[in-house]
Amino acid sequence: MQPAIPHVPLWIDLAAVAVGGMQGGAFPTTARDDRNDFDLLAVAVFALVVGLGGGIVRDVLLGQVPAALRDDTYLGVALAAGLVGMLAGELIPRLGWAWDALDAAVVGLFVVVGALKTQNTHLSDGATILLGAITGVGGSVIRDVLAQQPVHLVQRSTPYGLVAILGAVAFVLLERAGAGDTVSSLACLVVVFAVRMIALHRGWQSSAPVIGRFRPPSPRR
Amino acid sequence: MQPAIPHVPLWIDLAAVAVGGMQGGAFPTTARDDRNDFDLLAVAVFALVVGLGGGIVRDVLLGQVPAALRDDTYLGVALAAGLVGMLAGELIPRLGWAWDALDAAVVGLFVVVGALKTQNTHLSDGATILLGAITGVGGSVIRDVLAQQPVHLVQRSTPYGLVAILGAVAFVLLERAGAGDTVSSLACLVVVFAVRMIALHRGWQSSAPVIGRFRPPSPRR
Amino acid sequence: MQPAIPHVPLWIDLAAVAVGGMQGGAFPTTARDDRNDFDLLAVAVFALVVGLGGGIVRDVLLGQVPAALRDDTYLGVALAAGLVGMLAGELIPRLGWAWDALDAAVVGLFVVVGALKTQNTHLSDGATILLGAITGVGGSVIRDVLAQQPVHLVQRSTPYGLVAILGAVAFVLLERAGAGDTVSSLACLVVVFAVRMIALHRGWQSSAPVIGRFRPPSPRR
Repeated sequence: MQPAIPHVPLWIDLAAVAVGGMQGGAFPTTARDDRNDFDLLAVAVFALVVGLGGGIVRDVLLGQVPAALRDDTYLGVALAAGLVGMLAGELIPRLGWAWDALDAAVVGLFVVVGALKTQNTHLSDGATILLGAITGVGGSVIRDVLAQQPVHLVQRSTPYGLVAILGAVAFVLLERAGAGDTVSSLACLVVVFAVRMIALHRGWQSSAPVIGRFRPPSPRR
Repeated sequence: MQPAIPHVPLWIDLAAVAVGGMQGGAFPTTARDDRNDFDLLAVAVFALVVGLGGGIVRDVLLGQVPAALRDDTYLGVALAAGLVGMLAGELIPRLGWAWDALDAAVVGLFVVVGALKTQNTHLSDGATILLGAITGVGGSVIRDVLAQQPVHLVQRSTPYGLVAILGAVAFVLLERAGAGDTVSSLACLVVVFAVRMIALHRGWQSSAPVIGRFRPPSPRR
Repeated sequence: MQPAIPHVPLWIDLAAVAVGGMQGGAFPTTARDDRNDFDLLAVAVFALVVGLGGGIVRDVLLGQVPAALRDDTYLGVALAAGLVGMLAGELIPRLGWAWDALDAAVVGLFVVVGALKTQNTHLSDGATILLGAITGVGGSVIRDVLAQQPVHLVQRSTPYGLVAILGAVAFVLLERAGAGDTVSSLACLVVVFAVRMIALHRGWQSSAPVIGRFRPPSPRR
């Protein structure tokens, strides 16, 4: 039914799931608005979505039964992390750059896992980059769609999806150069982490679309 | 490509599809709002989404071609039921508790079908619970996303997703205790139906997320 | 892992992907609103979504690894077309009926590809119609959900989803009558193109749902 399970160390995958699950568990409290009066179940739903969503979409696209359904450790880690995220949600704003760093590291880990698992199915380099990036940011897209908030991935803000893509590109280039999985993975993680932290520190904003005759659009506000 | 088709009686599956399709067919008339001026095609789309959506998501996650694509009976039943739902939509409010009971029974049937089909693929207990619940409530989530209404599953209201989870947990516990498919399925159905009806009758509301230091959030309104 | 790749000429598939990608690339500029301040990455995201989304959903439902992940040509064509769409976006309103014709042709091509690929997996006629239509309009649904705009498919307007369904029905009827893939495909394309252009020219609007006792709903505005 499914191809051989790829050789990605389980703890890397679960570390990303745990921090993603915490973010998801904290989400219903912070994201309440006029339209959404989230309940306790939302904590579990968003923990699963942010912790496991990107990986589940990747596995489905790879034609595999999602890892999260083959091993209950994934569900358990995501739900427990969601509970922690809910209870500790008030502390997150106080963590400041430490939270940003954790977040950047998690996106990097997700991209590494996604790129490794895709490569193990012998698909093309483009697929490895795309599914690496989808693993990194897919959970946040599903979260935004379920909460009916503007999808963060495609909004002007500190680069986020672009950072995931850059990491996946670094992975593929190094693999092509014969660097081996460990070096390529580390490079991917470093690229995602470093570019994201520099972008946050310097206040970089992703640029608007270029429109006809290369005039940039006038600022909206 | 797909594993052996699980031995779930077709009529159980189709009964749930029929009532789900009716609900979907009635939806475009009742859910019209400032932003959505639904057309006749929406009746068919929402009948398919509510009647078949949860099962299709489950089958995709199980690595199977959805049952609804292997046997046209599913499409036919969902579309015919959608037509009935559209024409009879005005009557639904007058049905009162009978409609609530039908709805609770359908969620229960969906959960039973989802749990049985997942168990037949020999995945873990967590997967059986998750996919049982997804089969029960997945169609309503896709419906809300397409209509861009607050996703009912994660809002404070009469417990709905939780009821589906409880039913799936009852199924798994009884199977573990050696009760056999028939008894486990009946217990799941009874749990979903009874808890949902009691919750409606007593006006139970799902609780808000617990936030830091266990203070409950102040009420919003 | 995946069944034999269906014998659909690659250029037909890629032609539809290219025009879909252009539409997607032009979307972030035209669809900016109060809630969405799309960035440059959105051009790539919507080019992939509109150019490849319908086909990816179809392939996943067919149990196949999406063609777009097996051959990087798809990703390259969609992204390059998205760039063109972004730069040329201002010109689109001036193209008038030529753009409408291109759009109608693309929906027709997508439906043909979807119907052919589904038929090659020996699923039922209903599945061929459904997946033909999903290939034709699925990208636009994902686009609307990501941009949180009313889902065009289910709104009263010039018939769009219905046209895709009619084309797929024509395909299936002719195949049943023994007409062969080429004739059935051409007929499907002609039906989609002709009905869509006539509907635009005559200002046809899809009708509202019929509600109880067959009274049509009073107009909303």
